Amino acid sequence: NNAVGSNVTTVNVNNLGGLNTLGISLVRIDYAPNGQNPPHTHPRATEILFVQQGTLLVGFITSNQDGNRLFAKTLNVGDVFVFPEGLIHFQFNLGGNPAVAIAALSSQNAGVITIANTIFGSKPDIDPNVLARAFQMDPNAVRNLQARF
Amino acid sequence: NNAVGSNVTTVNVNNLGGLNTLGISLVRIDYAPNGQNPPHTHPRATEILFVQQGTLLVGFITSNQDGNRLFAKTLNVGDVFVFPEGLIHFQFNLGGNPAVAIAALSSQNAGVITIANTIFGSKPDIDPNVLARAFQMDPNAVRNLQARF
Amino acid sequence: NNAVGSNVTTVNVNNLGGLNTLGISLVRIDYAPNGQNPPHTHPRATEILFVQQGTLLVGFITSNQDGNRLFAKTLNVGDVFVFPEGLIHFQFNLGGNPAVAIAALSSQNAGVITIANTIFGSKPDIDPNVLARAFQMDPNAVRNLQARF
Amino acid sequence: NNAVGSNVTTVNVNNLGGLNTLGISLVRIDYAPNGQNPPHTHPRATEILFVQQGTLLVGFITSNQDGNRLFAKTLNVGDVFVFPEGLIHFQFNLGGNPAVAIAALSSQNAGVITIANTIFGSKPDIDPNVLARAFQMDPNAVRNLQARF
Amino acid sequence: NNAVGSNVTTVNVNNLGGLNTLGISLVRIDYAPNGQNPPHTHPRATEILFVQQGTLLVGFITSNQDGNRLFAKTLNVGDVFVFPEGLIHFQFNLGGNPAVAIAALSSQNAGVITIANTIFGSKPDIDPNVLARAFQMDPNAVRNLQARF
Amino acid sequence: NNAVGSNVTTVNVNNLGGLNTLGISLVRIDYAPNGQNPPHTHPRATEILFVQQGTLLVGFITSNQDGNRLFAKTLNVGDVFVFPEGLIHFQFNLGGNPAVAIAALSSQNAGVITIANTIFGSKPDIDPNVLARAFQMDPNAVRNLQARF
Repeated sequence: NNAVGSNVTTVNVNNLGGLNTLGISLVRIDYAPNGQNPPHTHPRATEILFVQQGTLLVGFITSNQDGNRLFAKTLNVGDVFVFPEGLIHFQFNLGGNPAVAIAALSSQNAGVITIANTIFGSKPDIDPNVLARAFQMDPNAVRNLQARF
Repeated sequence: NNAVGSNVTTVNVNNLGGLNTLGISLVRIDYAPNGQNPPHTHPRATEILFVQQGTLLVGFITSNQDGNRLFAKTLNVGDVFVFPEGLIHFQFNLGGNPAVAIAALSSQNAGVITIANTIFGSKPDIDPNVLARAFQMDPNAVRNLQARF
Repeated sequence: NNAVGSNVTTVNVNNLGGLNTLGISLVRIDYAPNGQNPPHTHPRATEILFVQQGTLLVGFITSNQDGNRLFAKTLNVGDVFVFPEGLIHFQFNLGGNPAVAIAALSSQNAGVITIANTIFGSKPDIDPNVLARAFQMDPNAVRNLQARF
Repeated sequence: NNAVGSNVTTVNVNNLGGLNTLGISLVRIDYAPNGQNPPHTHPRATEILFVQQGTLLVGFITSNQDGNRLFAKTLNVGDVFVFPEGLIHFQFNLGGNPAVAIAALSSQNAGVITIANTIFGSKPDIDPNVLARAFQMDPNAVRNLQARF
Repeated sequence: NNAVGSNVTTVNVNNLGGLNTLGISLVRIDYAPNGQNPPHTHPRATEILFVQQGTLLVGFITSNQDGNRLFAKTLNVGDVFVFPEGLIHFQFNLGGNPAVAIAALSSQNAGVITIANTIFGSKPDIDPNVLARAFQMDPNAVRNLQARF
Repeated sequence: NNAVGSNVTTVNVNNLGGLNTLGISLVRIDYAPNGQNPPHTHPRATEILFVQQGTLLVGFITSNQDGNRLFAKTLNVGDVFVFPEGLIHFQFNLGGNPAVAIAALSSQNAGVITIANTIFGSKPDIDPNVLARAFQMDPNAVRNLQARF
């Protein structure tokens, strides 16, 4: 029921103190029909994902040295996929019904960096002229995006 | 002389094999006047930067849990700044003259993920409908950006 | 349909090579009614478990210094539990119906040591006199157990 | 003078604070004639053992994936043996005289899990029906063992 | 303006708390004409060095197993060199003018052990008879050196 | 029967391949009367030492930041001492009889750097002028030492 149509419930060291030093945490992701977990990274963890319900299009993009290649795949119930540490990735619910995934992360506190919110919604805003050149957009288009996040 | 006005020269395990297992590498970054090292992350390293010449605006943005806060600062010759592992960061040459920075990374092969190129320039493209909702942009605007990268 | 009434399906670096160096793996565990995943350890990983279906009694026992205390809990669908690295633990399906759990491990190759099979079913057998004193059993009772594993 | 005929004296971070962060600890093990250090694991360390006096039968058992194979050897004074991290292992004094070993562990606090005490002597007891099926024993035999530990 | 003709300015976790857990630090080394950064080790870090100004003779010596070989090289402005973790190394300003280097270390707190000061200037002194045999010097020569540090 | 009156027998990954990845190794050190294990460091390991026979004077010196303080102690049979990773340390047999110690190191391949041999016996020699200033010795005295190692 939010802008991207997904909800992430996290079990990590912040709400389960016994995970301290144990190097693992877990999330449940619920996707509305056509909902997505938008492009993001985990600065301190690899993620392994299991589809519990529905059909998901998932993908990650490699680093510059590897050509920014997109590795994407359609997953059905019971399928497993891996997002290597620090790489940008996403999941998109292809179906008309809700979907559910269970994912584990190789850190007690993996961190999440949603790209759109970080680039266009930081507090305070990044100088629009910096973003305009980086993203090859008009500065006004950047300001419009910044106003939305 | 490129789109963003900066050039990065890297000494890592790929061109200096003796760095294998040693956990460190180094880069020299040259900035044209008003050039920038655009928003990017290193999936496997923290970066510590030293300004050798010029004046740089530098910044990083924290993760979602920390409110996507921008920590930015203007650096002069001799100043040092740190970009924590996996966080999105950038440098912008504020002055009308070239600038130079030396930066070290806590990995023999830190990796670089330039956000704009990874999001809008992946090979193949990410489905524009996914990006349109994630970035709250019109799908045609996404396609236009994808054509530029 | 085996002696303990459970089946473990593993996704680790041995069948998904891309997990190499990524520090995580995943298993699906299916339990027959009253089936169990018998007492075992993972020599190289912590495990985090999510109940997908059914009701499970789970537990782990602390080390000698912590008094060999049993921490046990009944888990229902959606519950999460953690088994710290190297500690002996088990799951038991309390219900009359099949149960399913998804668990992640903080290693690309966690290893599994089922206690009963390792103690009484090693190849070749451990000297029964050693086990008799260690387990305060009659040597013949040890030999009988060794014959079953 | 105890049930198993051995005594372990430990130097680790709990009684030598300077070992904090240093990743190593040491034990001296004294064995009565025919005494043993019964099957146990260290959840956080590899052990390297040196025989100072006497003749010891030592062994470890590999994990399920490696077939629960027993690697055993008779050691004399001056011999060295290694027990890999997390694997079940034991030492048995073959001779009619006391024996002494010095062993180091790759952790400031390796932990010890004696299998018999953990399985049959946990506090509170593990449900005897769980153990009966896991060890293919009669539930009453399990209860008898639990009464001894 | 000191005995060895060099000055090291350090940015590490002790004066930049944000480096905590980040695994990197940085130093600036200023060399007088013919000044040196005398033979020393970092017990917890590899060092990567960049020459900002001047001409430096740098070197490290391998361990006993590798034959105590000296790897030395003359570096000019812009050159980069690596000193592997724990190995003894030095830099010497060959030129008649001041020199400057920037170096990064793979630890938030690398530690520095200057060999001469540690061997001959410890507080209290090491027994001169021990050093005399170790260094194949006359005990009085050792005492003379100890009086200087 | 050598210059320093001690002999070190090493069990590490080079002669016991099974130690690979296990993070530990072991040495036996034999000392002639008044023999010593001269000042040295291990670039990749902490050492824990147990006195099996004789009386040893042992010590380590802290890093520059901690004032190059000498921590020394006389050890008798059964005593244990720790040399933290990367710090310079030594052992000296105080007694008129042979002594024996068993020591473990927190690495499969700890490395050894004997200070005197590395400083004055490197191949090729370090420039005597560099060492003369570093050690505040006459260059000829340096050359004499270099001729001995």
